[in-house]
Amino acid sequence: MQKPSIPKGTRDFGPEVALKRSFIISKIKKNFEKYGFLPIETPSIENLSVLMGKYGDEGDQLLFKILNSGDFLKKTTETDYTSSRNLLPKISEKGLRYDLTVPFARFVAMNQHNITFPFKRYQIQPVWRADRPQRGRYREFYQCDADIVGTNSNWNEVELTLLIHDVFNDLGLEGFILKINHREVLFSVAKYLGLAGKEVSFCMIIDKIDKIGAEKVTEEILLIGGNKAKVQAFISLLDEDTDSQQKLLQLEGIIGENKGVSELKLYFETLSRFPDRNLQVELDWSLARGLTYYTGMIYEVKPTSVQMGSITGGGRYDNLTGMFGLPGVSGIGISFGLDRIYDVLEELKLFPEMEHFNTQILIVHFDQATFDHGSILLDQLRAASIRAEIYPDQAKLKKQLNYADKLRIPFVLLIGDEELSTGEYALKDMKSGGQERHTFDGILRKFK
Amino acid sequence: MQKPSIPKGTRDFGPEVALKRSFIISKIKKNFEKYGFLPIETPSIENLSVLMGKYGDEGDQLLFKILNSGDFLKKTTETDYTSSRNLLPKISEKGLRYDLTVPFARFVAMNQHNITFPFKRYQIQPVWRADRPQRGRYREFYQCDADIVGTNSNWNEVELTLLIHDVFNDLGLEGFILKINHREVLFSVAKYLGLAGKEVSFCMIIDKIDKIGAEKVTEEILLIGGNKAKVQAFISLLDEDTDSQQKLLQLEGIIGENKGVSELKLYFETLSRFPDRNLQVELDWSLARGLTYYTGMIYEVKPTSVQMGSITGGGRYDNLTGMFGLPGVSGIGISFGLDRIYDVLEELKLFPEMEHFNTQILIVHFDQATFDHGSILLDQLRAASIRAEIYPDQAKLKKQLNYADKLRIPFVLLIGDEELSTGEYALKDMKSGGQERHTFDGILRKFK
Repeated sequence: MQKPSIPKGTRDFGPEVALKRSFIISKIKKNFEKYGFLPIETPSIENLSVLMGKYGDEGDQLLFKILNSGDFLKKTTETDYTSSRNLLPKISEKGLRYDLTVPFARFVAMNQHNITFPFKRYQIQPVWRADRPQRGRYREFYQCDADIVGTNSNWNEVELTLLIHDVFNDLGLEGFILKINHREVLFSVAKYLGLAGKEVSFCMIIDKIDKIGAEKVTEEILLIGGNKAKVQAFISLLDEDTDSQQKLLQLEGIIGENKGVSELKLYFETLSRFPDRNLQVELDWSLARGLTYYTGMIYEVKPTSVQMGSITGGGRYDNLTGMFGLPGVSGIGISFGLDRIYDVLEELKLFPEMEHFNTQILIVHFDQATFDHGSILLDQLRAASIRAEIYPDQAKLKKQLNYADKLRIPFVLLIGDEELSTGEYALKDMKSGGQERHTFDGILRKFK
Repeated sequence: MQKPSIPKGTRDFGPEVALKRSFIISKIKKNFEKYGFLPIETPSIENLSVLMGKYGDEGDQLLFKILNSGDFLKKTTETDYTSSRNLLPKISEKGLRYDLTVPFARFVAMNQHNITFPFKRYQIQPVWRADRPQRGRYREFYQCDADIVGTNSNWNEVELTLLIHDVFNDLGLEGFILKINHREVLFSVAKYLGLAGKEVSFCMIIDKIDKIGAEKVTEEILLIGGNKAKVQAFISLLDEDTDSQQKLLQLEGIIGENKGVSELKLYFETLSRFPDRNLQVELDWSLARGLTYYTGMIYEVKPTSVQMGSITGGGRYDNLTGMFGLPGVSGIGISFGLDRIYDVLEELKLFPEMEHFNTQILIVHFDQATFDHGSILLDQLRAASIRAEIYPDQAKLKKQLNYADKLRIPFVLLIGDEELSTGEYALKDMKSGGQERHTFDGILRKFK
């Protein structure tokens, strides 16, 4: 008999974890819909021609590839067996979705004539990466994405800012900060530092400041040719604890006017229309984000009361669908990281109690007659949309109560001979241990 | 530039279809939870050692296999390349989930010490089969399963019957019939017909009666050695239009007492406790169901007003987890087929209108000032949990109204100069074309 196991980097979710994950997803989904985003779903399996070359060499390595069905060696010859690289395209044409962005771009390109733009879509589905598994990094995980494409309006940046706040408010997470920056500002800074042509390298270095510190970052920027005095002046800006408006003025003083700077100004101006919203937004000139397709504002959410990387991120892009033959579709997107949000809420004990989700009443019985009576009450409880169960087997009281206890079912309805004759039922509160007598109508009223 | 496509047998779901699918899932989920089922999730990727040999030879063929990561040929030698069959185990160790039952059995076996039995779990996830794509058969599709394991109680059969009715009532499907049968009855019938040792073949033949007719079925049963007179007597029973109680007596008259017959009797007796439920249950001696692990009652739901195969099915099994080293765990399960239910509801036009799901109000504006004012109202509508959007770009009225029309947004809030000065807004009903004037509070009240 084999001892079963699951693949490295994958997870089973038991009821409690699954309910909590579903709680997060329902809040995100509710807010996506409140903001007018509509759901789409794309297949888990995509053609490799769609996926390859979209995530860099490393990404190509990390794609899960699916073996062709049937006699997959049929069309191969001996010369194909010389290396995995040679054989791969002959025996595999499909792979598992690596993120939701490329499939979305493919969807828009394929359905461009049926889509009404601006197109606000959300998508909550798993993705797969053959990464080395480690704490917080899994081979199968969920992304919760929303994008608005086919509009250049800077209102969308504000809209996503409000959305982020609504989602985390709904999840009960107060301690978080939304950090923003702008790709064009970063590129102008690079040019100002004497790094024209090396803007991307500059972004990758500056992005590491949280990990390696300002000194190392300065060193590395100098190494690729940055002007020493200017680099030091810029790095010293990162330290300053001024508000975002001040930061903008400071930077404008250095690099001059710029499309990125004016968009950021407009953004903060627009935010000021919502003074009661207590928006927690902060400019961070060191935020760069890895993905290369961003061209405008970029943003990331970090919890402030827990040690944790970014739990949400996104930005504006100018040409996402260009790779599939549909150029000039500007858009902006956001991605909520389900697994990290889960970890944060768990650490801060922000999930509602299990009783909020699971069975509300267990019906407990003593013999066939009380079971039969209980089964009728059970059906009536459910008809009133109360989540209810009856212990299905004939079993001792202790065993039935133990079941309620283990599953954290908050109330138990006891049906004995007395209950049968009087029509009054004993309702036991499993937390307090207290017991009350109610008519059945009284119980319905209590739970409705 | 490549022209993108999706793999054969897979589908993109645009907003309307995705919303309708989500509507079905939410109703199924709500009822699963009302009946005390708790969710679990298992990984999409399972070890092939878990999947292989569980679905017969054909199933092994239809499993999607995942190529090992990295240099997958590293540990192979020339002799492995002689055939796909030889090479497969050397280059692939994982596959995609084929159904939710085997992963569930694996989950129970692996987590047996942390599970409180009876264990009522539900699971709604996609599965993959490398089947030849055809109408109604896809390579990726959803299953919605609920199982109760660790209990022999015959109450569970009744419980699932009530659940099935609640789900289809909630979906608005009135025309359906729940057909039931019992594996032990079928096996006794086989023995009675002189087919001891050929029970499974008998079940497979009888299961085809809808497709090939009674005459062909009789022929085939005779071919494997059935007693002619007895076979004809049994086949003639299938035609009779008597009620289920009568059918039971008839069959008992032929094959005598039997565990299956008494369980069916008890089942109908228990159902009679719910006279107001209008339960649509019918005994069908020709129902056999393909899966070999069923050992007790089996059932299938078919719509009566649409030409369509079974949209839901399940049954009792005695030893599902035995294959993973945990024998003696009896259970009963049910699986709702999302795709077929979708097709039935669509054909019968039973889905709620799109307006039920998507944006309720679009804010339309004429210039920057009315846009700015509109954006503040927008945030207040959303704060009141109203699904609302503002057209993000400066655009002509016609274009904005066209957007509402295309997306079937039922109401448009027009903000012009007059609205700015009076504080009364024009609310346009996109269906009737009518227009009303409301204060903003009036609008909030109307939609809450």
